[in-house]
Amino acid sequence: MLALTILGNNSAIPAFGRNPTAQVLQTPEESFLIDCGEGTQMQLSAYKIKRSKINHIFISHLHGDHYFGLIGLLTSMSLLNRTQDLHLYAPPELEQLISLQLNFASTHLSYNLHFHPILEEGVIVDGNRMTVTCFKMQHRIPCWGFLFRQKKNPRKIDAERVKIYEIPAAFYEKLQRGEDYVTKKGTIVPNEEVTSAAPKPKSYAYCADTIYNESIAEKVKEVDLLYHETTYLKDLHERAAARFHSTTIQAAAIAKKAVVKKLLIGHFSSKYETLDAFLEETMAVFENTELAIEGSCYII
Amino acid sequence: MLALTILGNNSAIPAFGRNPTAQVLQTPEESFLIDCGEGTQMQLSAYKIKRSKINHIFISHLHGDHYFGLIGLLTSMSLLNRTQDLHLYAPPELEQLISLQLNFASTHLSYNLHFHPILEEGVIVDGNRMTVTCFKMQHRIPCWGFLFRQKKNPRKIDAERVKIYEIPAAFYEKLQRGEDYVTKKGTIVPNEEVTSAAPKPKSYAYCADTIYNESIAEKVKEVDLLYHETTYLKDLHERAAARFHSTTIQAAAIAKKAVVKKLLIGHFSSKYETLDAFLEETMAVFENTELAIEGSCYII
Repeated sequence: MLALTILGNNSAIPAFGRNPTAQVLQTPEESFLIDCGEGTQMQLSAYKIKRSKINHIFISHLHGDHYFGLIGLLTSMSLLNRTQDLHLYAPPELEQLISLQLNFASTHLSYNLHFHPILEEGVIVDGNRMTVTCFKMQHRIPCWGFLFRQKKNPRKIDAERVKIYEIPAAFYEKLQRGEDYVTKKGTIVPNEEVTSAAPKPKSYAYCADTIYNESIAEKVKEVDLLYHETTYLKDLHERAAARFHSTTIQAAAIAKKAVVKKLLIGHFSSKYETLDAFLEETMAVFENTELAIEGSCYII
Repeated sequence: MLALTILGNNSAIPAFGRNPTAQVLQTPEESFLIDCGEGTQMQLSAYKIKRSKINHIFISHLHGDHYFGLIGLLTSMSLLNRTQDLHLYAPPELEQLISLQLNFASTHLSYNLHFHPILEEGVIVDGNRMTVTCFKMQHRIPCWGFLFRQKKNPRKIDAERVKIYEIPAAFYEKLQRGEDYVTKKGTIVPNEEVTSAAPKPKSYAYCADTIYNESIAEKVKEVDLLYHETTYLKDLHERAAARFHSTTIQAAAIAKKAVVKKLLIGHFSSKYETLDAFLEETMAVFENTELAIEGSCYII
């Protein structure tokens, strides 16, 4: 299972109580922070999300509404005496900014910050339980999308039944991988007799700011949840294109083409006070859609 | 009259719903923004303060809780198509940061941003109605205080009475300066007959982060309102000194020594959930004290 909490769903200027973009993807073990607009550290507090579980932060691009809250979060983590390593994946220019800001303040972080510049498409995190891949968005400046894919979980061992068959603990890892057990007498114990299937691995794709670009569909094919920006309603498709953003029905078209399970839309323009029309227009093309609402947690 | 609105009253890490430092000093004509912690643009919206009236921004020092909200505010002003010039007074290093952040985002501001590096004590704004002077604080990194002093207002002309004495309009400016009028026949019309005194000019001193430093009192002598930081309660005076901050009774001692009319205290440490003890301790030494509370407007 994955749980995605929206910390900010607005584009550019904060408006109508909506904050700039930030999301946190949580697993039982750790949390992944995706973009970090101004005020993210306050939103983390407001929604009781533990900063100590965040070990990886991903910044899609260097427009302020996606990263102006980062330096505040990094320094607050240090003031709170964090000691765990923190990994930051971002366009290369960000490293210089952070280092200048820390220098001007005479601040030395209490933890190791590992800066991983994003230079090309591919796997950027290959953890025990999750891989994260980045792929190009098409925006006014270099911009990246992120695909989070849980690794296949090991099968679950039935403690009672392995005892009955007297299977030695040394063989458990093989059982978890799905192998059958052969007793000393040569009898086969089928794997299904002593294990059960693990939950299916889940996937989440985050498509940051982008003009409508059909080739994205290939990158996010069949994910469980796709987040795609919808800065504008469909009537403003010309403005959307001019500013390298997308409309409702364009996001829906990508979701449809990619055959995703569910679509989540956000990055709403500050010109809109209410969001109902975003949902209506998108659902007309791709029904299983939800609005990204701040503080809401979407279970994947 | 001056009106001071507190947008953030906390130090370092946002906590208990309290935001990092920012204040806005308003006159009928324009507003002066003093420090600009993360989230200041949201606080300006929350308290309905017009960004368009802000023509001068003052940054005391480059610790993040005093300026991380600046770049967001500057870019939002541009997204809102501001055209008026904006003047920024800050430690010189900030210019490079802003220019990098704008470059990385390929952003050109819609208005002229005039950067005024603060290099030494003295007058930094000499406007028609207000002078602003900066003076040194004693902190871990270079840090400035700001003294806002209204200029003497012209005397108010009584429209009825100048008609009775047939005083020509060409003489009005002299009347406003307090001169008597002499008629063609040589009769003296005393200034008080046709004008009334303007309201007394007001003064506000902002003392940003500082260790206890008696010499500040001389700089802020007899101001109408003194803001002085009180990061800690009095029992933590050693911690305060070690971190170049002040306690309640230290701020009160400065207010007393400077014979100010009123003291406002803020920049509370994130370790304190409630603030009552701050007020009690400070008032025990300097009675006319108030807590800087976010959203509250203090009339000077």
